[in-house]
Amino acid sequence: MFSVTVREHLMIAHSFRGEVFGPAQRLHGATYLVDATFRRAELDADNIVVDIGLATKELAGVVAAYNYRNLDEEPDFAGVNTSTEYLAKVVADRLAERVHAGALGEGARGLAGITVTLHESHIAWASYERAL
Amino acid sequence: MFSVTVREHLMIAHSFRGEVFGPAQRLHGATYLVDATFRRAELDADNIVVDIGLATKELAGVVAAYNYRNLDEEPDFAGVNTSTEYLAKVVADRLAERVHAGALGEGARGLAGITVTLHESHIAWASYERAL
Amino acid sequence: MFSVTVREHLMIAHSFRGEVFGPAQRLHGATYLVDATFRRAELDADNIVVDIGLATKELAGVVAAYNYRNLDEEPDFAGVNTSTEYLAKVVADRLAERVHAGALGEGARGLAGITVTLHESHIAWASYERAL
Amino acid sequence: MFSVTVREHLMIAHSFRGEVFGPAQRLHGATYLVDATFRRAELDADNIVVDIGLATKELAGVVAAYNYRNLDEEPDFAGVNTSTEYLAKVVADRLAERVHAGALGEGARGLAGITVTLHESHIAWASYERAL
Amino acid sequence: MFSVTVREHLMIAHSFRGEVFGPAQRLHGATYLVDATFRRAELDADNIVVDIGLATKELAGVVAAYNYRNLDEEPDFAGVNTSTEYLAKVVADRLAERVHAGALGEGARGLAGITVTLHESHIAWASYERAL
Amino acid sequence: MFSVTVREHLMIAHSFRGEVFGPAQRLHGATYLVDATFRRAELDADNIVVDIGLATKELAGVVAAYNYRNLDEEPDFAGVNTSTEYLAKVVADRLAERVHAGALGEGARGLAGITVTLHESHIAWASYERAL
Repeated sequence: MFSVTVREHLMIAHSFRGEVFGPAQRLHGATYLVDATFRRAELDADNIVVDIGLATKELAGVVAAYNYRNLDEEPDFAGVNTSTEYLAKVVADRLAERVHAGALGEGARGLAGITVTLHESHIAWASYERAL
Repeated sequence: MFSVTVREHLMIAHSFRGEVFGPAQRLHGATYLVDATFRRAELDADNIVVDIGLATKELAGVVAAYNYRNLDEEPDFAGVNTSTEYLAKVVADRLAERVHAGALGEGARGLAGITVTLHESHIAWASYERAL
Repeated sequence: MFSVTVREHLMIAHSFRGEVFGPAQRLHGATYLVDATFRRAELDADNIVVDIGLATKELAGVVAAYNYRNLDEEPDFAGVNTSTEYLAKVVADRLAERVHAGALGEGARGLAGITVTLHESHIAWASYERAL
Repeated sequence: MFSVTVREHLMIAHSFRGEVFGPAQRLHGATYLVDATFRRAELDADNIVVDIGLATKELAGVVAAYNYRNLDEEPDFAGVNTSTEYLAKVVADRLAERVHAGALGEGARGLAGITVTLHESHIAWASYERAL
Repeated sequence: MFSVTVREHLMIAHSFRGEVFGPAQRLHGATYLVDATFRRAELDADNIVVDIGLATKELAGVVAAYNYRNLDEEPDFAGVNTSTEYLAKVVADRLAERVHAGALGEGARGLAGITVTLHESHIAWASYERAL
Repeated sequence: MFSVTVREHLMIAHSFRGEVFGPAQRLHGATYLVDATFRRAELDADNIVVDIGLATKELAGVVAAYNYRNLDEEPDFAGVNTSTEYLAKVVADRLAERVHAGALGEGARGLAGITVTLHESHIAWASYERAL
């Protein structure tokens, strides 16, 4: 199994609802390092997993939709706790849509899966892994 | 599949028995960066994998039992080579006990597995992965 | 010249005023890795720059005052752009007050200076350096 | 499942053929951080996955064969795009040959698999995973 | 003293002349992580050291002039050993020209100095520091 | 001013004397990442600060003298608290001796200074800087 990973980052404000979150129930924020991993069993005709230029561009596009925003005010996230693990799924699902729409190139239709990891600090990170 | 990882560190002395260890047969020591990853298929009612505050607290508790110690003198490790990979298993098993005892919260009973990675330097690390 | 550095982190929301900030004029947030460096010409009687336990505790105390907050609503920062470089100065000045008040131990009165670095992402960071 | 990883690095020149590579079709180069992970279900009689000294030595040997070279002129790679993901497979396959030849010790014959990750920058990396 | 640092990267081929370089006399290559630090004594009217957006754009522009190239064939470097430390100076001097030309904004004319660090691997890096 | 830095690591056991050290008064250990920085105002005839091969070899030699040892039993450190900051000075002084003895090459006699940084974990490090 082969994989390729590209990294972006995302700076947002948000708050959480639920006692489990303690002081993070207040409006605060985070920088997320966003790592998107694309997997497949065999390389394509160019000997690659995915066009790394397109992968970087599409990941940047997904991230840009939320960058420099207060997630509490985003309609997509109404009534949702935008935890690191949940946001990893959001990024992975958006990337999957772009793969299926052909935005990562025709060769990318051979991708088997995507994993997205969001690092919220040097001591905590979360991942979501899905098939394509 | 979702996961959340938290990082702690551990500073210990120890020695190894067996020619394969070369100069590491002498009493020496290590700083281990300890990454504990908790996995589950679905998020809980708070939209998280595990309470990251409790996960951090319990990992710190597991690490504290061995921190600033000479492992050669710990009864738990009598006659055992406390290799990085072995210590990864020790930390994972101790965390599993705490999950089963409810120390990571009721929601954590839905966890599917734990992986622990110990970095012994910038050029070597080891992991142990288990189900819950 | 000797120095010792300890790392903490800080998660806040804020916004900027001024066209130079572009999309960062919107309410967003950041995780800052906060590195505090303490400098002196000679080691103290214990052969150290500063008690690393106290340094860590006091840095954590300084950071806790702003952690999980919206800096736009903090009276300390009314009418101020809380840029990364400005926040580095805030942390350094708060630490200097604590050094002068004896919170880092009597030996710490021999410190010559403090540098604080805040990393806002893997590709951008800022520092402030001052004498004591 | 246990694993041990060791890190080396490799500095090479090469070029790519195919429009997908854009400016990387020109002769350029890369530093690859090369992480080799060895996996097995149970530890051996010394309580380890593999002799980390031998693992480091053999990874260095594999890397040395290509280090400080122009891959475009290496007979092994004639007509091949030496992408990061492809090179990860090359390193993994060379390590597998050495495991099978006994170069990583008799105990290493119990290894279940190898994963090799090549980091081409702080924002892009690729992996190849195989059984032994 | 305040500073702000931004990071880019650069992938090039080159070779060295001189026995001191050993195997690096062959055509090979490197990924350089390029950190550009801008320093000044006081913040500007926006409470910043430099417009981080412009700093990032101009550093990217400086790097782009050499990216994906064989430095042995660049007229700028004819007869020159393009060592990591030398390239750090090249990047710093190009940035200084851009500061003086106003490309980093009018406020950037108040900058006191620039330091550029190039990381050639996880175990080696070089810097050049200059006044403005 | 130019500089070049190379990284090694060191794994030792030791203990501290003095209440300030708390639990670190017990026999424990550490992995130190050891960064040695060599500085000079002008590059030498080969366009470098120092032969990076020799710098790496000599740093490794300095580190090897203490690697895999219990510093409490080293005659060099009898009655001394081997704090991270103190060990940074030890490494810097040993390197300075080697520079003066010509072990880093004739060109290295032009070096102006050395800084050594020891990282004891991902959240704490110490440095010592000296002239040559």
